[in-house]
Amino acid sequence: MSKEQRARVDALLRQPQPEGPRSVEALRAGFEALMTQMIVPDALRLTRTTLGGRPALHVEPDNGRRAGTILYFHGGGWVYGSPETALSLTGNLVARTGFEAYSVDYRLAPEHPFPAAIEDTVGAYRALLDSGVDPSAVAFAGESAGGGLAVTTCLAARDAGLPLPAAVVAFSPGLDATRTGESMDTKEGVDPIFTREAVERTGVMYLAGADPHQPLLSPAVLADLTGFPPMLLQVGTNELLLDDSTRLAARARAAGVDVILDVTAGVPHVFQSFAGVLDEADEALDRAAVFLGQRVGGRVLGGRAARASSPAENRSAES
Amino acid sequence: MSKEQRARVDALLRQPQPEGPRSVEALRAGFEALMTQMIVPDALRLTRTTLGGRPALHVEPDNGRRAGTILYFHGGGWVYGSPETALSLTGNLVARTGFEAYSVDYRLAPEHPFPAAIEDTVGAYRALLDSGVDPSAVAFAGESAGGGLAVTTCLAARDAGLPLPAAVVAFSPGLDATRTGESMDTKEGVDPIFTREAVERTGVMYLAGADPHQPLLSPAVLADLTGFPPMLLQVGTNELLLDDSTRLAARARAAGVDVILDVTAGVPHVFQSFAGVLDEADEALDRAAVFLGQRVGGRVLGGRAARASSPAENRSAES
Repeated sequence: MSKEQRARVDALLRQPQPEGPRSVEALRAGFEALMTQMIVPDALRLTRTTLGGRPALHVEPDNGRRAGTILYFHGGGWVYGSPETALSLTGNLVARTGFEAYSVDYRLAPEHPFPAAIEDTVGAYRALLDSGVDPSAVAFAGESAGGGLAVTTCLAARDAGLPLPAAVVAFSPGLDATRTGESMDTKEGVDPIFTREAVERTGVMYLAGADPHQPLLSPAVLADLTGFPPMLLQVGTNELLLDDSTRLAARARAAGVDVILDVTAGVPHVFQSFAGVLDEADEALDRAAVFLGQRVGGRVLGGRAARASSPAENRSAES
Repeated sequence: MSKEQRARVDALLRQPQPEGPRSVEALRAGFEALMTQMIVPDALRLTRTTLGGRPALHVEPDNGRRAGTILYFHGGGWVYGSPETALSLTGNLVARTGFEAYSVDYRLAPEHPFPAAIEDTVGAYRALLDSGVDPSAVAFAGESAGGGLAVTTCLAARDAGLPLPAAVVAFSPGLDATRTGESMDTKEGVDPIFTREAVERTGVMYLAGADPHQPLLSPAVLADLTGFPPMLLQVGTNELLLDDSTRLAARARAAGVDVILDVTAGVPHVFQSFAGVLDEADEALDRAAVFLGQRVGGRVLGGRAARASSPAENRSAES
């Protein structure tokens, strides 16, 4: 346990913010400035490409490549963020699994409200399948709004008749545009990043008048997850969005879906961004990598499902 | 995924049972006959010993020993079972972590009802500490009733002023003598092993008239888990006891405790016993080993908390 580290991260995030609502441009610049401070693993190969007509960042390990593709969706309230702001998370998953990742630069609100982002992420998945990638070798992953997209892209893909990926990993996903989770109230003040007001400000931009009572906007409240692949939800107790994950996990259990609800106490929204600084971040990413190693690509690489294993073990088995 | 394997295990467990209530002797013999069919890993060293005045089975890896001690509590409704019936589970945890385990032969009901079992498990823990073992290098683990003991022993240890272990791992734990979980009703018939009637028959023997409304008997309903170490709860969706785990996880989150609620769909009570037969069993045990590797003994072995790692990685790091 790292009580001191948890407290330091909490204090860092509580530093004074500019007063009042910020412009979209200021939100985007502020988030970029914050996230580019995060530590990105060495030994990655980055290539700008396109996927389904959208820009995407292709992230590969320099060595120890294993069969498996992560389709990654960055966070930022559907209003800000980019593959670059999520690079610490995407890169850490790639470095720990040996898989490649495509991080999708989906369209953002308010310029492009719902369902533009999901159209883009489904388009990217379809392009991946069209290129010959086996869905059993694909995982969807994302943080915050992108964690929400990991779930809703799966819903939209299922409804479009596409084969589903092998796994979904979501870090502190945003899964409820109705904002009815208990933690929306009980964690106000405890959450060092978000207030209900801030969440709703960007939420309104994404909705642009759409009814939040639909599965693609509020899967934690409304989605039927039947047929979903195994899911890993990681979330901290110090966040307004905690109950987005607890309610989605309950829906997954009810639908007969394998689901791991992995809760770390005393840490904020997307604490995994603090990999290299906060032990809990590295440990959570390591568990995510083990989960991905168990679920993705096992059938392709051999007859038996991949045994749980760290990236290091898999690499040594190949060498 | 192994849909065929899950179905085969389900069918196996649904084979005709003798009609009507069985005697305690028949329950004990039947459980022993079932559990001794489970696959025990090779390369273990087994020694009969005592711990806190009770018999215990000391289980060690033949090689690749790492610092860490699992205090294991077998299942069997507090009425049947022994360290031998749980040997597949204990042995698989030892083989995968490199830790030693002591599996406690605690006293059973109806001869020795509540709180005899907890007196014995707390006594075993106290003896371990008295022998000089650091609590940060200890995990409690168990299955079914023993998973319940992993939690209640921690409660009793806390209330006795003992330092707490570094982690708790519970497979399909029994955590509610009030039997108020929704799954007690919704999973009747879905659960291939238990009926409410069967659970209550042994439950009554353990209670022997005690009020079930107390934390040491119904922690999922009543326990304050403040100060608890990180917990991993693994459970299947095909079991009456599913909501024992979901409710304990909710209590843990509320108390600020790290908790992983790891649910596998379509598998029965203590499916991990089918290691070597059911992929989900091996995968779940591998995840349990990663969790234990992250939580146990890290501070003892080095300055930094142990990085997530498979047993193999840890071993190769030592060699």
